[in-house]
Amino acid sequence: MIDLRSDTVTKPDDMMRRLMSEADVGDDVFGEDPTVNELENYAARLLGKEAALFTTSGTQGNQAALLTHCRPGQEVIMDDEAHVFVYEGAAISAFAGLQSRTLPHQNGVINIETLKAAIRPEDVHYPETGLIWLENTHNRGGGAVLPLDYLKQVKETADDYGLPVHMDGARLFNAAEALQVEASEIAAFADSVQFCLSKGLGAPVGSVLAGSSSFIRTARKKRKMLGGGMRQAGVIAAPGLYALQERRARLKEDHLHARRLAEAIHEYTDLTIRHSVETNIIVADTDTSARSAAEWVDLLAAEGTAIIQYKPKALRFTTNADVSYEDIEEVVSILRGLPGKEEI
Amino acid sequence: MIDLRSDTVTKPDDMMRRLMSEADVGDDVFGEDPTVNELENYAARLLGKEAALFTTSGTQGNQAALLTHCRPGQEVIMDDEAHVFVYEGAAISAFAGLQSRTLPHQNGVINIETLKAAIRPEDVHYPETGLIWLENTHNRGGGAVLPLDYLKQVKETADDYGLPVHMDGARLFNAAEALQVEASEIAAFADSVQFCLSKGLGAPVGSVLAGSSSFIRTARKKRKMLGGGMRQAGVIAAPGLYALQERRARLKEDHLHARRLAEAIHEYTDLTIRHSVETNIIVADTDTSARSAAEWVDLLAAEGTAIIQYKPKALRFTTNADVSYEDIEEVVSILRGLPGKEEI
Amino acid sequence: MIDLRSDTVTKPDDMMRRLMSEADVGDDVFGEDPTVNELENYAARLLGKEAALFTTSGTQGNQAALLTHCRPGQEVIMDDEAHVFVYEGAAISAFAGLQSRTLPHQNGVINIETLKAAIRPEDVHYPETGLIWLENTHNRGGGAVLPLDYLKQVKETADDYGLPVHMDGARLFNAAEALQVEASEIAAFADSVQFCLSKGLGAPVGSVLAGSSSFIRTARKKRKMLGGGMRQAGVIAAPGLYALQERRARLKEDHLHARRLAEAIHEYTDLTIRHSVETNIIVADTDTSARSAAEWVDLLAAEGTAIIQYKPKALRFTTNADVSYEDIEEVVSILRGLPGKEEI
Amino acid sequence: MIDLRSDTVTKPDDMMRRLMSEADVGDDVFGEDPTVNELENYAARLLGKEAALFTTSGTQGNQAALLTHCRPGQEVIMDDEAHVFVYEGAAISAFAGLQSRTLPHQNGVINIETLKAAIRPEDVHYPETGLIWLENTHNRGGGAVLPLDYLKQVKETADDYGLPVHMDGARLFNAAEALQVEASEIAAFADSVQFCLSKGLGAPVGSVLAGSSSFIRTARKKRKMLGGGMRQAGVIAAPGLYALQERRARLKEDHLHARRLAEAIHEYTDLTIRHSVETNIIVADTDTSARSAAEWVDLLAAEGTAIIQYKPKALRFTTNADVSYEDIEEVVSILRGLPGKEEI
Repeated sequence: MIDLRSDTVTKPDDMMRRLMSEADVGDDVFGEDPTVNELENYAARLLGKEAALFTTSGTQGNQAALLTHCRPGQEVIMDDEAHVFVYEGAAISAFAGLQSRTLPHQNGVINIETLKAAIRPEDVHYPETGLIWLENTHNRGGGAVLPLDYLKQVKETADDYGLPVHMDGARLFNAAEALQVEASEIAAFADSVQFCLSKGLGAPVGSVLAGSSSFIRTARKKRKMLGGGMRQAGVIAAPGLYALQERRARLKEDHLHARRLAEAIHEYTDLTIRHSVETNIIVADTDTSARSAAEWVDLLAAEGTAIIQYKPKALRFTTNADVSYEDIEEVVSILRGLPGKEEI
Repeated sequence: MIDLRSDTVTKPDDMMRRLMSEADVGDDVFGEDPTVNELENYAARLLGKEAALFTTSGTQGNQAALLTHCRPGQEVIMDDEAHVFVYEGAAISAFAGLQSRTLPHQNGVINIETLKAAIRPEDVHYPETGLIWLENTHNRGGGAVLPLDYLKQVKETADDYGLPVHMDGARLFNAAEALQVEASEIAAFADSVQFCLSKGLGAPVGSVLAGSSSFIRTARKKRKMLGGGMRQAGVIAAPGLYALQERRARLKEDHLHARRLAEAIHEYTDLTIRHSVETNIIVADTDTSARSAAEWVDLLAAEGTAIIQYKPKALRFTTNADVSYEDIEEVVSILRGLPGKEEI
Repeated sequence: MIDLRSDTVTKPDDMMRRLMSEADVGDDVFGEDPTVNELENYAARLLGKEAALFTTSGTQGNQAALLTHCRPGQEVIMDDEAHVFVYEGAAISAFAGLQSRTLPHQNGVINIETLKAAIRPEDVHYPETGLIWLENTHNRGGGAVLPLDYLKQVKETADDYGLPVHMDGARLFNAAEALQVEASEIAAFADSVQFCLSKGLGAPVGSVLAGSSSFIRTARKKRKMLGGGMRQAGVIAAPGLYALQERRARLKEDHLHARRLAEAIHEYTDLTIRHSVETNIIVADTDTSARSAAEWVDLLAAEGTAIIQYKPKALRFTTNADVSYEDIEEVVSILRGLPGKEEI
Repeated sequence: MIDLRSDTVTKPDDMMRRLMSEADVGDDVFGEDPTVNELENYAARLLGKEAALFTTSGTQGNQAALLTHCRPGQEVIMDDEAHVFVYEGAAISAFAGLQSRTLPHQNGVINIETLKAAIRPEDVHYPETGLIWLENTHNRGGGAVLPLDYLKQVKETADDYGLPVHMDGARLFNAAEALQVEASEIAAFADSVQFCLSKGLGAPVGSVLAGSSSFIRTARKKRKMLGGGMRQAGVIAAPGLYALQERRARLKEDHLHARRLAEAIHEYTDLTIRHSVETNIIVADTDTSARSAAEWVDLLAAEGTAIIQYKPKALRFTTNADVSYEDIEEVVSILRGLPGKEEI
């Protein structure tokens, strides 16, 4: 099965498995795991932040950030398809007591005037605006990369209003690769950044939250409350560190693969891709197709290719480290060979 | 000063003041205030519900309803300008731990297909849909009345999915008056309904939450937690009961006054009213005006008429029990006499 | 019926009723109710604080204080029978997300070394200590007055650790009367103080929270979230202001009545009062009695006197403004005439 | 350094490291990690429960249990030194909105009459009792084992009142070993049980929560909200499963070591152990010692033995898988050779 459902499904390679088995470990709750410490230090430097924190998932990194930046009754400004709004079980409200102020977006980009207008003036009736949230690359926006000048505008706006900015950079390194800049150049526009080791980078488990030293000190306590205080966590930090150091470069291949696949979808199917394919995600709409989303999923599964139904009328194809050039050519070939509309 | 800022600003009349001073009272936390009990019983019957609860405000009634219907991590489907989202300090998330799923609306009406699509399927990532929220009349929709057939569709959808419906009927009796139906006919489409005594009905303080007996039993406990357990509350329930019994009929006048005023705004100003004026609220947009919203507020204040800036580019005029026919004619005359665009 | 169940059960007198009916009012959410403003200003001055806030109950004042002083994950140090722990529906945890660190007490007084030992050192596992809570007079401690030197020690300890102090002074003026000091002298040892108008002072509804200007500004927003933003609240603030100005002096009578009653309980019954009777509350233990608590409640009810079962083996008698000297003599007479143990 | 600070500090052995590197894995968020599934199934059977859930820590398992059993405003009855109260950052209140009702205990055992008296009757003022919490073995009680007949009494009481029981069995298998019973025999007295793989069992990371199928289904969603949804989690589940299968038997050695150490402490030092040493934990009080707790920690560290100061006047020694018989003899020898009181 060629698995294009997500970039989370990749399995650790031999090197990662060897690193796990050889990791130098300690009790991380006591701050004594050398591998975790090395990962946190490396990640902080890479993002140009003072400190970093290893978490068990992107959700945990995001939630720790919310709990650290904000207090209940505040509002977080975000786009209306943000992962934190759609896929984190409303923990933002359930645990952090925050209201999501969701705004319309184009590929993760909110109109700056709309964003400014959403910042609340002081009034006894209103929630207080507490944070601006960015997602980069933007998952439901088809892996879209937030442009650097947009990030600059958001950060300047945030500074004008004295608001912090968090970036859910679960796929931050896909953005950096696409823009051909250092991740730190992107991260500079946010006070805190979360990125995942277990997506395109291919590590089995884990994410990293980075920010100022005092921010991370508090976030560490929030992580403990969330149950993210692990013991000999070096066994999973080791492949994570390796992934971060050695696997960023190969994201380029995922992007090439996605573009190749997008061309084939365009050429051979009645699906419509309404976004430019900038990174490793393709969201293909079925509203122009004779087949429903569920039918597409079943059809491709029968041919040995797994994708997911992403919205009622959309499919997601995600290239990842376990999908080779040959695999992509295989999928292209499958698409080419599909019965046409008229034949259904 | 003719005060058109809100229908909350009305002062109790002589009868209400007399009723306060003569109210038969007891300790309501012990359930011993006969006037509160009478108000609650009367309100329940009037709305066709089993039981009711006196609260100190519409916000308190709404919050008690949320805390009773839902549990943290759930999502409440509502329109994106609902009072509970905009004006209640994000208590829905801060206290009840709920995520607001805000949908676009026309005068408070959400497209039924959009509403259905927002109900979450079971998935470990998603919040669970917990409640459908209606606001009737719809404040930011210009006092719009939700059509009965829309309510029916919403209730049927809710039933299909096993979801409860709450109606924020702060101005429920304005809706009933506009539709010329009994309030109970409207309330029948919701499991719980909150209405305010201190808006168009003119009582000094208080709201009522109505629903099933078991719902109200739990809501009573939530009210206590919110600090709404009062002692000799009969002193404010008395004018509330009177307002509910005797002042519903006069809402018709507020509606007539609003229409008269709307005509004058249309005829004499460069403001634009984009909604039909069905009840006691006029939202007039300033985007077509040579004057800004703030300038309009100041200009009318100088002439002895108070209104509020409602959105960055909108004003709200609200007719109410303390504004007479003569007052309206006076405002009309002021509008007629304003310097034209060219003269500014 | 002579009602000794609580001091919350008193009914407004003629003067209060007249004041209600004549109150000068406005919309308090807009800050325009002159009577509420006068009450808040008077209360602030009386307590030696910068500002004050009218709330609908002591619970609401306490909760607004918690929401203002603290943030979720903090711990509040208090005695293990504090009203906020026992009688406020766990709102301290449900809404404010706080952990109650309950310590043993004698009449509301916690051993200072025990209190100091409960302040958490910095550690990733521990909650952070956020507030020290005092209750004065102490309800379950038999209306006990916290000694001034104890308050001084607590305040000094709090200052040493940089912690705020809140005083639940629901019966603050009973404490002031018993100590023969100004209420401000007591309030000086706390950053914020809540007191009730509807207990010994006899007003029908309401409490006041006092503190610094910035504290009250934030608390006002929290009150709105709790649903405590009322409109023409002057109608209940008016009798509250009168009660605060004119009814403090008569608390002395309640205290005399309580002592008279305590003597009779001691002399004529097999109940045991284990605390000194300093104010208006008597907690009488039934463990030395041939009758159970429930039997006592029924027996006295049959004789025309209402008391409450307070704990599984304790009764509470509370003197209040609606209980006269003659009433007390009547109760004494009832106690004197009860069948003895041997006769049961 | 002989590390007796905790049983969390153990490092994975060669077998565990090999298992990690060879684990069969998949994306556990999709339910596709065969090793995680095997661990969960094995654990459920071992505890006699329908289902189980792998979590990243005992704290996460406990919090998921609270979020599943209870709703905000409820009260959880527990002993006043429970791990969930002392060491989990008040997440019980911050995230789950619950009030901890802490009762005095002897080695984790609460007097049954005290426990019954703490269950709240229905009253609008009171929190609702939602859960009874047990900790077994009891950490701060010196690794005490809860007697089976106590568990039976608690469960019967809970059943009488319709309350669920959760057991924080972080060291459940120490209890089973000490009692010489199957873990399922202990777990039968609780509706849900959490145990740690990373304590005495020696796995690097992880805990397991077990209960009914529907309980675990909901807990799985709560785990996702807490950020505990991991991807190829099999890499840590593999050593966990091995630890659970193969390392339970060796807990007996830890217990023997602890008893040997306790005898030496008794014989050679002025420290006092006030509990019977039933499992792998010794809490030694310093109030009888000429040295403070901090001095003891430093003194032993200088000799190559790490312990922790546990309370202001107590030390904790914890035997674990990385401490051999020879290590214990070495510590005994150190204690024997310490300068006596008179020599200090």
